[in-house]
Amino acid sequence: MGVTLDDIKQAAEVLDGVARKTDLIHSVALSGINEVYLKTENLQRTGSFKVRGAYNKIHSLSDEEKAKGLIACSAGNHAQGVALAAREAGCQAVICMPDIAPISKVEATKSFGAEAVLVPSTYDDAAEEAERLQKEKGYTMILPFDDPYVIAGQGTIGLEILEQNPDVEVIVVPAGGGGLLAGIATAVKAIKPEVKVYGVQARGANALARSFKEDTKYVSQKASTFADGIQVKKPGDLTFEIIKEKVDGFVTVTEDEIAAAILNLIEKQKLVAEGAGAVSVAAVMFEKIPVTDKNVVCVISGGNIDVNILSRVINRGLMMNDRRVNISIEMPDTQGALARACSIISECGGNVLEVHHERGGRNMSLNSAYVTFELETRDAKQARELRETLEAEGYSLVRQS
Amino acid sequence: MGVTLDDIKQAAEVLDGVARKTDLIHSVALSGINEVYLKTENLQRTGSFKVRGAYNKIHSLSDEEKAKGLIACSAGNHAQGVALAAREAGCQAVICMPDIAPISKVEATKSFGAEAVLVPSTYDDAAEEAERLQKEKGYTMILPFDDPYVIAGQGTIGLEILEQNPDVEVIVVPAGGGGLLAGIATAVKAIKPEVKVYGVQARGANALARSFKEDTKYVSQKASTFADGIQVKKPGDLTFEIIKEKVDGFVTVTEDEIAAAILNLIEKQKLVAEGAGAVSVAAVMFEKIPVTDKNVVCVISGGNIDVNILSRVINRGLMMNDRRVNISIEMPDTQGALARACSIISECGGNVLEVHHERGGRNMSLNSAYVTFELETRDAKQARELRETLEAEGYSLVRQS
Repeated sequence: MGVTLDDIKQAAEVLDGVARKTDLIHSVALSGINEVYLKTENLQRTGSFKVRGAYNKIHSLSDEEKAKGLIACSAGNHAQGVALAAREAGCQAVICMPDIAPISKVEATKSFGAEAVLVPSTYDDAAEEAERLQKEKGYTMILPFDDPYVIAGQGTIGLEILEQNPDVEVIVVPAGGGGLLAGIATAVKAIKPEVKVYGVQARGANALARSFKEDTKYVSQKASTFADGIQVKKPGDLTFEIIKEKVDGFVTVTEDEIAAAILNLIEKQKLVAEGAGAVSVAAVMFEKIPVTDKNVVCVISGGNIDVNILSRVINRGLMMNDRRVNISIEMPDTQGALARACSIISECGGNVLEVHHERGGRNMSLNSAYVTFELETRDAKQARELRETLEAEGYSLVRQS
Repeated sequence: MGVTLDDIKQAAEVLDGVARKTDLIHSVALSGINEVYLKTENLQRTGSFKVRGAYNKIHSLSDEEKAKGLIACSAGNHAQGVALAAREAGCQAVICMPDIAPISKVEATKSFGAEAVLVPSTYDDAAEEAERLQKEKGYTMILPFDDPYVIAGQGTIGLEILEQNPDVEVIVVPAGGGGLLAGIATAVKAIKPEVKVYGVQARGANALARSFKEDTKYVSQKASTFADGIQVKKPGDLTFEIIKEKVDGFVTVTEDEIAAAILNLIEKQKLVAEGAGAVSVAAVMFEKIPVTDKNVVCVISGGNIDVNILSRVINRGLMMNDRRVNISIEMPDTQGALARACSIISECGGNVLEVHHERGGRNMSLNSAYVTFELETRDAKQARELRETLEAEGYSLVRQS
């Protein structure tokens, strides 16, 4: 039971009017050694590509199967994809979600008319509960990736890329369970086998990358990444068979690289990507993909990132670029010393966010005080000038840990 | 010297292959009493619509004028628009920018090959310097809005909206100097006069809205808003003449409303809008536009927001939604009191970002300590439960200022 180009072409017809044909956008900022384009599935309905596979699967069911109702397990994108697809197909859907799922994803799933069953603890517990409910109630299970109809649905993205950018030479695809990657590779290799297709995983959740390298399916004991959309321990059987045959290579990216890619997309492309969606861009930014002077498409698979996480990613990115800095100074506890330090910071163009003033701590001279400023700065150059000016004016900078 | 539909249609031909025909995206989150679509000019090249007008203007110049070189003054979007348009037209461009402009905008302007002249102090100073340089060097000035070719260029957005959404009934447009609004109104009223066109300004920078209301051009002494793209004190003469005749109404939005709109676009649409770009969405979110049950298009005019500002907007939005909370408690200075408070917070699902522990302050009992926790919470309900549990366990909550 494989997936063919015809299956994918048929899925494209099924999805007409249901999934958006998302825009392909040229990225000036990422282009340089390559010409880089972004396939913006973060702008897909439900904020990720998942609705494509889910709807194609549901459409394939018999009326009897549909009437029994659907069930799925997901902490995020698949939940919303199934919920919207079920509503479009006129079916009832029950989604088991771990109760640690962000409230925004639970609410979004409910907003499409699905019933969300919150299961205490982890994804695995929610998956068990989904299986139990399926048996008890006779629901039809909609798998997140290891299903030929689901793979064919995701493969429609490959057709769109070839149509929107006929000169494409390399396609870079985020991979968790491998449904998106298997679908795109099937479509692209059938039409234009010379186009290279690469998978990208997070370093902390690399089961598929490792399986590919070792040529045998590998199941991780744990998967750890803030890119929760690709935090998968067990690759699919069918997806792995397809990927093994059709994909040209795999790379992994670190958490910091993913965060930098998210920040780049926000600043330069005005696009919000979730961690899973940004790994393809991270792979290109940090030159993990072995290509130069090529026409490259990065698939941004989704944008459903919790705003609390996004806020942390931005703050971290600002700190990495020296645009938000902490400067600690030791200064004589004399009148006007704090005021003068504040003046220097202001004159150098720093913008104070927070000040902590501490006196009499361990390892401190009895006559000294420590002050830590959290500052906004324009760039690394301004931050350096600011530190140098403070030192030139007699303040001792305390090394940051 | 007005602007006609033919001028705009001609501009559309001129812009073919230069400006992107940006996507029109349906917003589930904003739809409710109305069906709302977003015209995503934040995804335009240079991150705003400005390249349309700038390129159309440059294209209209004689070879002699082009050869003299171009000059413009801008702190942001117009700078990048002129820089890219000049490069596409094969001209040299000098852009005077106030030296307080974000480094990212200066760098972006230079990256398109323009010369950026940083002028100390304000926009007005930079504008004076641009005029001086124009006279001295014989450059051709590219105005940001008060020019028929610029207005016609921006008007192409109106043509695209009518083509992408033939059922549109209301178009909501951000307005600073009025070039975008005048252009869109001219296109739309010529083709489909029954479509309503509204302008939106920030409450702190409402010169055009007030001019419209008083039916006579009003110049503000100051303009204050974080939506710097529409922070304009003096409306254009030509833009005001057109707007007076063709626009159906004006509304204003507050800074908090703009911030809420930016957060909504990030969370629900995966789009980054700058303050100016989000005012149209703010007007719909906060029901400023007097329509129900209509097909509405909000123009998101740009996405060039400084990440430091964006970070503050997100943090403020999280606090407004009780998803980031500060909880201060007064507690007896006894062993284990802090540990127990931390346990309660953890059990209620709060995630600690920062802790400040203070003892012996003014107005404090000698036996008490104050602790302030900065927490991430899932939603207002969880934040409330957390506060209630702490009180039930004997901690006194200190009222937040």
